[in-house]
Formats: sequence, structure tokens, C-alpha cells
Amino acid sequence: MNDLLQKPRKVYVSRTIEFNAAHRLFNPECTETENVEIYGKCSNKYGHGHNYLVDITICGIVDCKTGFLFDLKELKAILEEEIINRFDHKHLNHDVPELRECVPTTEVLAVLLWDILEQRMHNINNRELALHEVKIYETGKNAVRYLGE
Amino acid sequence: MNDLLQKPRKVYVSRTIEFNAAHRLFNPECTETENVEIYGKCSNKYGHGHNYLVDITICGIVDCKTGFLFDLKELKAILEEEIINRFDHKHLNHDVPELRECVPTTEVLAVLLWDILEQRMHNINNRELALHEVKIYETGKNAVRYLGE
Amino acid sequence: MNDLLQKPRKVYVSRTIEFNAAHRLFNPECTETENVEIYGKCSNKYGHGHNYLVDITICGIVDCKTGFLFDLKELKAILEEEIINRFDHKHLNHDVPELRECVPTTEVLAVLLWDILEQRMHNINNRELALHEVKIYETGKNAVRYLGE
Amino acid sequence: MNDLLQKPRKVYVSRTIEFNAAHRLFNPECTETENVEIYGKCSNKYGHGHNYLVDITICGIVDCKTGFLFDLKELKAILEEEIINRFDHKHLNHDVPELRECVPTTEVLAVLLWDILEQRMHNINNRELALHEVKIYETGKNAVRYLGE
Amino acid sequence: MNDLLQKPRKVYVSRTIEFNAAHRLFNPECTETENVEIYGKCSNKYGHGHNYLVDITICGIVDCKTGFLFDLKELKAILEEEIINRFDHKHLNHDVPELRECVPTTEVLAVLLWDILEQRMHNINNRELALHEVKIYETGKNAVRYLGE
Amino acid sequence: MNDLLQKPRKVYVSRTIEFNAAHRLFNPECTETENVEIYGKCSNKYGHGHNYLVDITICGIVDCKTGFLFDLKELKAILEEEIINRFDHKHLNHDVPELRECVPTTEVLAVLLWDILEQRMHNINNRELALHEVKIYETGKNAVRYLGE
Repeated sequence: MNDLLQKPRKVYVSRTIEFNAAHRLFNPECTETENVEIYGKCSNKYGHGHNYLVDITICGIVDCKTGFLFDLKELKAILEEEIINRFDHKHLNHDVPELRECVPTTEVLAVLLWDILEQRMHNINNRELALHEVKIYETGKNAVRYLGE
Repeated sequence: MNDLLQKPRKVYVSRTIEFNAAHRLFNPECTETENVEIYGKCSNKYGHGHNYLVDITICGIVDCKTGFLFDLKELKAILEEEIINRFDHKHLNHDVPELRECVPTTEVLAVLLWDILEQRMHNINNRELALHEVKIYETGKNAVRYLGE
Repeated sequence: MNDLLQKPRKVYVSRTIEFNAAHRLFNPECTETENVEIYGKCSNKYGHGHNYLVDITICGIVDCKTGFLFDLKELKAILEEEIINRFDHKHLNHDVPELRECVPTTEVLAVLLWDILEQRMHNINNRELALHEVKIYETGKNAVRYLGE
Repeated sequence: MNDLLQKPRKVYVSRTIEFNAAHRLFNPECTETENVEIYGKCSNKYGHGHNYLVDITICGIVDCKTGFLFDLKELKAILEEEIINRFDHKHLNHDVPELRECVPTTEVLAVLLWDILEQRMHNINNRELALHEVKIYETGKNAVRYLGE
Repeated sequence: MNDLLQKPRKVYVSRTIEFNAAHRLFNPECTETENVEIYGKCSNKYGHGHNYLVDITICGIVDCKTGFLFDLKELKAILEEEIINRFDHKHLNHDVPELRECVPTTEVLAVLLWDILEQRMHNINNRELALHEVKIYETGKNAVRYLGE
Repeated sequence: MNDLLQKPRKVYVSRTIEFNAAHRLFNPECTETENVEIYGKCSNKYGHGHNYLVDITICGIVDCKTGFLFDLKELKAILEEEIINRFDHKHLNHDVPELRECVPTTEVLAVLLWDILEQRMHNINNRELALHEVKIYETGKNAVRYLGE
């Protein structure tokens, strides 16, 4: 029996994944000039790209029997299916249906990943478990966090 | 006199340490098959290992005289005594008494480090100072945070 | 129209900058012996130095039109003007007026950067936008966060 | 006078730059099926992208007067003009004339960067100075070096 | 046709992999005291562990048709089969037959990985291709390179 | 007996250390204007500073008995004594006698570290062992290697 887990312990577990994608920051409702003004070289016609590094954090009470918050193999499978399959080696503006009406900034991407994962986590029959945060590093210098607020 | 510290300022100070340890994820109350199902290759008989990277965060009001939250030399000595001495170059299942009845997952390890440091910080005669967070990176891709909740 | 942004979304955007500076931890109100006792080799006469890595985090609601929290070009210009120009390639004790009466610890530096940026952000005419956190890594092992508390 | 530099000292100086670009691995001389076989998801129609990290290394004898191998401000300007301006925020297949007839793999990119910089360094009137190596990290896991052989 | 590859270009391609393993530094031909003297806490009875980071570098002439030195999917499969399967989540002293008579230092491990991969590369029918270097980081502070000399 | 070491194996072992120091790039034999022209803001009067990261590489034949190239405890002690004690928490221009007549660029520093360590390694009674390389990262973007040429 695990004495350390006799009282409930709330932990935050983060898993880091990476996907490589192209995007173009361009709002079709604005003029070409406005787009250059707002997005600069990020609005170049054919797009550019990034190695997106994503930290997914879930939280909840540690399971007394396994010592895990959540089965890591299951989390990996979810992230593979929901994130890697949708975004990896894609051009975000062309290949991701949810982003077609959007300007695919890192802010918008963080919100989209949250919405996808939130929905998926809801279906897991574990009342203690919740998605806590999606953090995306677009480069080593820029990051966006979304916590569902 | 330090004008910047005339009003109390609450800061969070983090110190990163590393220890290299072996562990085996195996619950003796489960069957061999269940263990493989839950822990996969992490349940291999002799164990495997990690370079555990640990961020310890304390918080409180900056001291007007020193400009420090807490004497870093003292913090280093505490972490050396309480963490490095207990866990570095050890096999967590065999060499750490507190983990003998446990499955030494990163979640459990984060909780144990918190309990050890919480107790130790309590004995420091400084009402402003508190342990804020223990964060453990098991690999570059997996991390667990515990904040005492 | 961006469906994802139809309801307001609060995000946290971080930008990482670096400045290289010298400092000396020495309190002129204390004796030489006290200084060595408190600051050790950090009190060496001519100072030593660091590559200070700074994460600035702002938060607020994502703009529906641009998909940005805040114009990154403007943020870059602010950080260049307020942080890089003041601190990069400087000796903090000699070259930064605000630090002359202080011991320039990382804690004090985090508070000063907050005060400078808070003031500057106030003048931006955007009620949704706020400075959230200043985090400074003095080395890869030591970091201080200040959130304005 | 600098005693340490009385005898000639050959050093290797590296400068790291980053550019964010999209690319598609696709050879128009092959069939669609062959392309998928060779390049897998890297052959997706609109391309994907990376944060390309590039280490440029030059070598030669340290200058006795300045203590530098080469004026860093000049090196920065060269890399800005020759690399950043050509490749940053571009789609390599569409926007870079030299790559139009090529499959823009990291190997080919390393060779192209070498050829561009080699030519440029030749024009610098310093017989001691030479380009030594171009190293490109496409992701944290894949890197290619070219030394002009 | 790729003009850049009209003359043969020799490149070095590196792939980084990680495995998590336990080991104990202990030479059964020495006394207990000698072992402690030589290996210190690395000789602890049950072993400790590391996240071993391995850079495998191969070299040769870039292929004119593909723009690759070597098919990355094939390289990944080789490293999975020869390295990950043998070493990941293992206790090096107990689970790796080739290391049973050895003290599994990082030096010895680098030599073993070289021997395994050298043999395997030999069987690839490509006279241009060669294994160039095995580099192992045991921690962020210690690394060993072996080049077959 | 260690079969893997029956034939001599030449390995390269690297150890990473860090020291935090201040410096000023200023050549007293030049005018103030020339100094600003050559060194820009690096010539600021009181200096600035860096977290210098240093990779020391030694090479030679692996010892059959220990499986080590060289006793790591001894290497650590040498680096502590020769590098950390001389350079850590120092102002290079004021506190390091060997640099008083020099402009302490990273190039000059790499040469000095080589000279110090070369001399020291010579005194070790092991004909197989040699210093191979000193590499200094001044920032994450600039590095200098010296190999004794």
C-alpha cells in the first residue's frame, strides 16, 4: 500500500510533442497593404514554417493503484491521433479544415488545440481528470499558453 | 536604501538540480501480466534509469537588506542534504526507504520530494517563506508538477 | 470570420529576450565581512556577469481581426527600448540609475523590469491587455519570477 | 602587447542563426507514387516547415590587435544579407531561385549555403580566413554538416 | 536536374536518439574497496540510471536523385532495431549480453554502439556510405565520442 | 575481461563546465574612437558579462581495467582548480593576471584555457592522454574552438 497516496494528491502532468508545419498569416478580409502592415513577412504568399513544440498539461488526483495520473500510453495515443495526425507535415492554411476561415497565429492554434483536446478528454470516464493548459512554442523566443479561460 | 523594496514584493525563486537514478515501475499487489499491461517496458525486472531534472520553487517577500528571498547557499545545502544525498546514484525501489511500498512513478516522486521539503521549510524560522512547487522532468518530454494540493 | 474567436479567449503570450550584463552583489550599508558572509564570491570587487535570459508574459483577449493578442512588432520595439537599451552590455551597479541604491540581485532585477514594463503597458490604450509575469534566468540553474504581487 | 597571440593561433568561430521556412520534398522527375515512397509525408502538396538552426563556422589566425578572428559585426551583416534575407519566412520551393530545380532536402540546403558563403568569403581580402563548416539542424533530431568536400 | 549536386558532395548526417537505462560501474575482478575508489557512488549495488542521448553520424556523397545521403526512414528503422530495442528501458549490466563481461562506462558503450552499427552499415550495398561517429551524452555535462579509431 | 577493449580504442571525452565572469573589450593601445569602432558596446567602461559555457575535450585510449579514458574525479578536480578558481565570478580584465595585457575576447580566452590545461595535462604520467579541444560558448549564438594549432 502506498502511504504517500493515502490522501488525495493533485498533480499536473505535461507531455511535450512536436509537429512541423507551414503557415501563412493573411486575413482575406483585409487588403494586401493591411496584411503587410499587420503581418509583415509572415504574410508572404506561399507561407513559411516552424517546428511547433507543444506542452500539453493535464491535472487531477494521482491513482492509488498505478501511481499515475493517467495512462501515458493512452495519452500518447490521443496526442498522436488528435494533434500529430492533424497538424504534422501540413500547411495549416490549406490542410486543416478548422483553420481555413482563420489566420493561423500561434494564439489561434493554441485555442484550437485546447478545443480539440478538451472535447476528447470529456469523453474519458474519469471525473478527476481535466485538461489544464496548452502551451505552444512557435520558436525558441515566442510562446502562447491557453488555459480555457 | 532600496526604494524598489519599500513595498513588499512577493517573488518565486526556482533552483534546478539533477539526480541520476534507476527505478522499476512494478506493483507487487498486481500480477505480472497486469504489471506489463500497466507499465509496459517500464516494468522490466532490473529497472532502467533517468537523469531526473528537478525545479524547486519557493516563494515569499524579498528581504530589504539582502535583496534575496532566501540565502542561496542555505537553499543549496538543504537540497544537497535532502534530495541529492537521498536520490542521486540510487535505485529508487531498493535504496530509498520511503519508496519501498510504492511504485516510484514521477508523480509519486514529486509528492515525496514535496513532503520532504515542506517539512524542512517549516522548520525555518521565516513566516514569509513557503515551498511553492516541485517540478520533475523524467525525460525532455515528460514532466510532473506538485504544488501541495 | 474566425469561429474560434467568437467567444473571448484569454491567452498568455511570452517573449524571450537576452541581455549580457555585469553586476556585483554588495550592500554599502554592511561591513566588508558581512558582505562576504551574505554574498560570498558574488561580492568580488569588480563584479562578474551573466547572460540574463528574460521571459516577459502578457495576457488578455485574442483580437478577432488579427488573431494576435498584441502586435509582436510593437512588443519587440518596447522590449528593445525599455530592456535591451537599459541593461544590455552594461554593468548593473554603475550604468543603471535605478539600481544605484540597490543590491542588483535577480529578485531586485525582476521587480525593476516589472515596474518599468507595467508603467509602459499602462500607457497602451487597450483595457484587455496586461503584463502578467517577468521571469529571469540568471543561469541555467537559477530563476526568479515576479507577478506584481 | 598580447603575449598569448605572439605565435599564430588558429581558431574556429561559430555563429548560430535561425530562419523559419516552408519546404516540400518532391522530385518532379519522379511519379507521384515514387515521391510518396521516397519522401513520405514530406511530399505533402502545400509543404510543411521548420525552424532551421544554422551554425556557420569560419577558421583562421586570431588577429593580434583586435583579439578577434573576424569582425563579428561584419559577419552578422554577411549572414543577414546572404542567409536571412534569402531564406527567412520563405517557401524554399517557390521563393528561392537556386532551389527551383532541386529537392530542398537539408543536405541540398547545406551545400547551397556553403556555396553562397564560400563565394562571399573569397571576396574578403584576408588570406588567413576560410569558411570551415555549415551545419543545419532541421529539427532537434536531424542535422547535416557540409565542409566543402 | 539538380545543378548543386553535379559535382559529388560529401555530407555528414546526424540523427539523435535517446534511451533510458540503468547501469552500475563495478569491476568484479577488483575488490569492493578498489571499486569504490575507482567508481565512487557509481558503484552502488543496485545501480542508478541515465537518459542517454546518442548522436549517430554517417557520411558519404549526396544522392543526385533524392537529395538525401541515405533514406531517413531506413536509418530510423536501423536505429530502432539495433539501439532502442537493445538498450532502452534496460539495466545495462543485466540485460545486454555484450556488456556482461564489461564495466558499462560511457566509453565502452560508445565503442559497443559503433561496433554494432559498423557491422550493420557494412551490409548496406552502398560503397559511398560510412558510419562516421557515435557520440553519447550520459548527462548534460559528460559526453564521449568514438570514430572507429 | 572486457572483449570490447582487447584492441585499443581511441575516444574523445568532453566535460562541460560553466563560469560567470565580467569582461570589457578595450585595447589601451588604440584610441577611444578606434575601440568603439572595433568593439562597439562591448567596450563600455565598466564592462558587461556572460555565463561562459566551456567544453573541454581530452582524447586517448580507453583503459582496459576501468573502462574509463581518465578518472573523472581527477578531471573534475583539475578543471575546478585551473578554470573555475581562476575565472568564476571574476572580472577578466582586472582579476586574471594572464589577461591584463590582452583584450579578453572569446578567442583569446580559448587560447589561454588551452595553454593552462595543456601544461597541466603534460604533467600527468600517461602518454596516451592528450588535450584535444577547448570550446567556449560566450552566448547561445557565439562559440570559439581552439585545438592547439
